Amino acid sequence: MTAGPPRGRFITLEGGEGAGKSTQARRLEAALAEAGHRVLRTREPGGAPGAEAIRGVLLNQGPWDGVAECMLHFAARRDHVVSTIRPALAAGTWVVCDRFADSTMAYQVFGQGVPRAVFDALAAVALEGLRPDLTLVLDIGPEQGLARAAARGETNRYEALDPAFHERVRAGFRAIAAAEPERCAVLDATAAPEGVAAAILGLVRTRLGA
Amino acid sequence: MTAGPPRGRFITLEGGEGAGKSTQARRLEAALAEAGHRVLRTREPGGAPGAEAIRGVLLNQGPWDGVAECMLHFAARRDHVVSTIRPALAAGTWVVCDRFADSTMAYQVFGQGVPRAVFDALAAVALEGLRPDLTLVLDIGPEQGLARAAARGETNRYEALDPAFHERVRAGFRAIAAAEPERCAVLDATAAPEGVAAAILGLVRTRLGA
Repeated sequence: MTAGPPRGRFITLEGGEGAGKSTQARRLEAALAEAGHRVLRTREPGGAPGAEAIRGVLLNQGPWDGVAECMLHFAARRDHVVSTIRPALAAGTWVVCDRFADSTMAYQVFGQGVPRAVFDALAAVALEGLRPDLTLVLDIGPEQGLARAAARGETNRYEALDPAFHERVRAGFRAIAAAEPERCAVLDATAAPEGVAAAILGLVRTRLGA
Repeated sequence: MTAGPPRGRFITLEGGEGAGKSTQARRLEAALAEAGHRVLRTREPGGAPGAEAIRGVLLNQGPWDGVAECMLHFAARRDHVVSTIRPALAAGTWVVCDRFADSTMAYQVFGQGVPRAVFDALAAVALEGLRPDLTLVLDIGPEQGLARAAARGETNRYEALDPAFHERVRAGFRAIAAAEPERCAVLDATAAPEGVAAAILGLVRTRLGA
């Protein structure tokens, strides 16, 4: 028996609306590929056929309470992890994911007031211990972020929520990063995209030796 | 402050395909209404607008693993409980429900092999202690039940699964009833519908004083 390829690394991008997560995910994918890694870029909710079906319900249907919303996010995440993320990592592929469990913590627990114990129970069931090797929190004030998202013509249910909600979400992402500094890094997402991308690459090199 | 109406009672019907749950739910609804109760007849997955949207995904989309399937069922159940069942019970309405959590235990835990700890964690999150006052398990051999369902022109993903799966589901329902005899009763669903209905009414009178 020969050993398989070394496990890939799992990098997540987190942050509020308009923080530039998708742009930075694409840049990071390109930079990692250039460095010789196999890379899979994916995003939540979704990232696998079953999870995409759940995404459709999450974005277009409802309403339900915050607990049911958490359960749907983790059901989609379960499928994403089992069908896409774990197989890629096991094959040595690096995974760059636009939103992951921290978004549920920020939006549903900090934003909507779902008990943290609910999050913990669902995360244990869905993830069975999987956690990102590096989480990049793109930090931006809600007003500026929502204006950016609106300029792109993007709106969703969350963007329609009140400003105080988005402040709680931002505070949530910062609290997550503060609680797990070895996993997370907070970046100033108001900087130019090139500068943010350079900062991300620096972090990936320093922390993951990419 | 005056006291509200007495809480309604929560009755669930469980069993495999073709056991006659829907027929018996309608008969029981009529009998309880005749006895002067306000009655709400409902069914899972579904029973509330958000839960019905999740039902559509559960019945028509996928695939995902048994854990994700459990999470989706409990997400729908959460909405059903919060939006429909608890408000009805609080208003003094009796609730007659065609399938509830025992179906997830029978199909996903006994049938598909999902760990019982997963079920317990999700049930705690979704139900917050709600349990039926009486659960009627309509017991029928899978071969006979599936033939009945096929004769009605009903097929679904579960019915297409192998016979051993349906035997495990039946054994699951019986094990649930054996473990909680004060809540559950097993009825022979191969008997004539009138006889099953009479047995159900007898149980409702004896156990719930209806």
